Amino acid sequence: MPRYADMSKAELETELAQVRARYDEMVARGLSLNMARGKPSAAQLELSLPMLDVLDADADLIAEDGTDCRNYGVLDGIPEAKRLMAALLDDEPDNVIVLGNASLTAMYDAMARLMLFGTQGAAPWNQLPAVKWLCPVPGYDRHFTICEAFGIEMIPVTMDEHGPDMDEVERLVAADEAVKGIWCVPKYSNPTGATYADEVVRRLAAMDAAAPDFRIFWDNAYAVHHFSADASEQDTVLDIAVACAEAGNPDRYLKFGSTSKITFPGAGVAAVAASPANVAEIKRHMNAQAIGHDKLNQLRHARFLNEGAGLAEHMARHGALMGPKFELVCRRLDEELTEAAVATWTTPRGGYFVSFDGPDGTARRIVELAKGAGVTMTGAGATWPYGNDPADGNIRIAPSLPPLEELDAAMDVFCCCVKLAALEQLLAA
Amino acid sequence: MPRYADMSKAELETELAQVRARYDEMVARGLSLNMARGKPSAAQLELSLPMLDVLDADADLIAEDGTDCRNYGVLDGIPEAKRLMAALLDDEPDNVIVLGNASLTAMYDAMARLMLFGTQGAAPWNQLPAVKWLCPVPGYDRHFTICEAFGIEMIPVTMDEHGPDMDEVERLVAADEAVKGIWCVPKYSNPTGATYADEVVRRLAAMDAAAPDFRIFWDNAYAVHHFSADASEQDTVLDIAVACAEAGNPDRYLKFGSTSKITFPGAGVAAVAASPANVAEIKRHMNAQAIGHDKLNQLRHARFLNEGAGLAEHMARHGALMGPKFELVCRRLDEELTEAAVATWTTPRGGYFVSFDGPDGTARRIVELAKGAGVTMTGAGATWPYGNDPADGNIRIAPSLPPLEELDAAMDVFCCCVKLAALEQLLAA
Repeated sequence: MPRYADMSKAELETELAQVRARYDEMVARGLSLNMARGKPSAAQLELSLPMLDVLDADADLIAEDGTDCRNYGVLDGIPEAKRLMAALLDDEPDNVIVLGNASLTAMYDAMARLMLFGTQGAAPWNQLPAVKWLCPVPGYDRHFTICEAFGIEMIPVTMDEHGPDMDEVERLVAADEAVKGIWCVPKYSNPTGATYADEVVRRLAAMDAAAPDFRIFWDNAYAVHHFSADASEQDTVLDIAVACAEAGNPDRYLKFGSTSKITFPGAGVAAVAASPANVAEIKRHMNAQAIGHDKLNQLRHARFLNEGAGLAEHMARHGALMGPKFELVCRRLDEELTEAAVATWTTPRGGYFVSFDGPDGTARRIVELAKGAGVTMTGAGATWPYGNDPADGNIRIAPSLPPLEELDAAMDVFCCCVKLAALEQLLAA
Repeated sequence: MPRYADMSKAELETELAQVRARYDEMVARGLSLNMARGKPSAAQLELSLPMLDVLDADADLIAEDGTDCRNYGVLDGIPEAKRLMAALLDDEPDNVIVLGNASLTAMYDAMARLMLFGTQGAAPWNQLPAVKWLCPVPGYDRHFTICEAFGIEMIPVTMDEHGPDMDEVERLVAADEAVKGIWCVPKYSNPTGATYADEVVRRLAAMDAAAPDFRIFWDNAYAVHHFSADASEQDTVLDIAVACAEAGNPDRYLKFGSTSKITFPGAGVAAVAASPANVAEIKRHMNAQAIGHDKLNQLRHARFLNEGAGLAEHMARHGALMGPKFELVCRRLDEELTEAAVATWTTPRGGYFVSFDGPDGTARRIVELAKGAGVTMTGAGATWPYGNDPADGNIRIAPSLPPLEELDAAMDVFCCCVKLAALEQLLAA
């Protein structure tokens, strides 16, 4: 079969008839499948069930420093949990503040503090005429929602397989002191799966910023979320803390992470890691907001994951479940769409997403068609600020939730919808 | 023995010598006792240990609405937890948002939203030239810390056994649109133990406020924390939600509460209850901050406390441990200080504190003396905004943490220090 672009109108019409017939069959099957969000599957959740037995009524509930984890106290986390989250965030326990159940809340609260109080002596951001933020695209919709909530103007910056376009980032950051920060998912990025190259990390750390209080929100959500247990098939990312310190900008970054996709999403432990000056500032503000976070859940996690030493083994089990799903997605895309040559997609080695680009102007139509056949995708546009993908081409594929056989059926539908939308567009042109 | 005020100088000097000798003996004993914070005792924490067995690896982890509590989702809480927290907050489940581990965080976040975004269409408070807040005194230091964090000017209002001085509250609230709210601990107030009279609640709900966005932060921290299981010996408080609705000010209040002093402080569940309009507004803002809170902990609590039906029985066990401690405190104060007539104190029927008033100008000295004899009290001044008790007379006594025998020893020290400070003052005059 030739590329769609090389087909005659008659050939396109024949193909359309076949694809539409297949689509109609799928609609008739009355499927209900979901590839919308990066939710772990039931099989993944079962991996952490033994954690619920770690703390029972007979357990020792005293942390190693003598803290009774059943009572008030400890603003920044018990030592065991600090070590766990330091392992996850590639940092020292002293630089870690253990928080509540979600890194999303940690990031929102960090942004709220910057708006209300400023940082390291600079003016509160809500007193400024404008605050702007760089958003590598495609990116994570919940990051964009935080900016929108605070009225922060988002500026998209193109991502490639090495991270954001650093020429563009450097130009924007140097030119405008209203540009106060950037979202980064440095490893297995949401949704492209790209991992930042060392040079990208170094340039982020060292670039001249017009705003002295420029901040990198380093959302290392997929820090240990490899598909393979073989180190040679895992991505690594340079430590932003070390890079910033070496570049003489030690306070430029805030690292965020959680165990949401390690143990139980929503019932895990989150943390921020930062420079000593930023840790002190955050704790000073937090002192009015909290007495301490859930130390029993900290203890439960620290013991279950052996304070970080058990992470690799536990994540290998996740990888063994996730790897085949991503393999399936990429294989089906390849089988169905390579010949037609109407789309491109990423092939990550970890994380939760495949980023898919169809023909410009088809993403909304593809998602609509899939919905019509019972397959829910992430909304088209969600990977761009304000939900506005100017090319209307990008779709985030989230293969984690459905079991393999359902995923296979969902990819059948998705690929058929891509072809249908592409053919409709070519014939309408 | 006569009242100290009626003693001659010679009598005072004799008494001082005796009291000082007793104090010196106490110092020599090298005690280390703590009556500083409202922390439950080890015996109280043990009451909730069975809760740690509620969810194990074999438990049903699905909420009644089909939600898998192990995975993402549910912004406002699973139905079981909403019913539990509605029982605690004397409200309907539909008006409840179940939150994280602490009502303190719930209150801080609520204040942060008012500062950043305003409420029900009114201007964000941080855009106003001044925001003022009424603080019934003596009151709770962490409430004051929240105001200080946001630069809110605090205005003390006198408390009596029926609640805040409502003539003064009404005058201040009607006169100045910068007065945006009031802290209330309506039942077994921190630290006086007073419960608001029905008439006080009705006046708070109905009073004319210059600020249309005036808000009552209704911190019902001790809603079910009675010493007696006998209803005739328990305080009740009128529902502020009903009172506000009846008065035509349905959005004036926000109710806060948590299970911190029911199960495990810091590992419990908090909630806010509010009018439908406020619930909708809070959820709209929270949508950027959270996907959902810890549903496993919600499920654990809902099952352990039988969705609220088990609260009374569980709290009776707490009361059986707390009651004797408060009885001891009040008995020792009575035995040691009534004749000298140098102090007054409250005798609450629930909650966590006794409010003590020594002679004006002695509170700091008493706390200092107690510290010197190994007994840590809540800092003098802590019960007033900015730590500034103008009379320097009020001290919060927190009897919950020490076992009875330690509490007895601590009260020995405390009463001795009160007499010593009073005598020093009388002789210096």
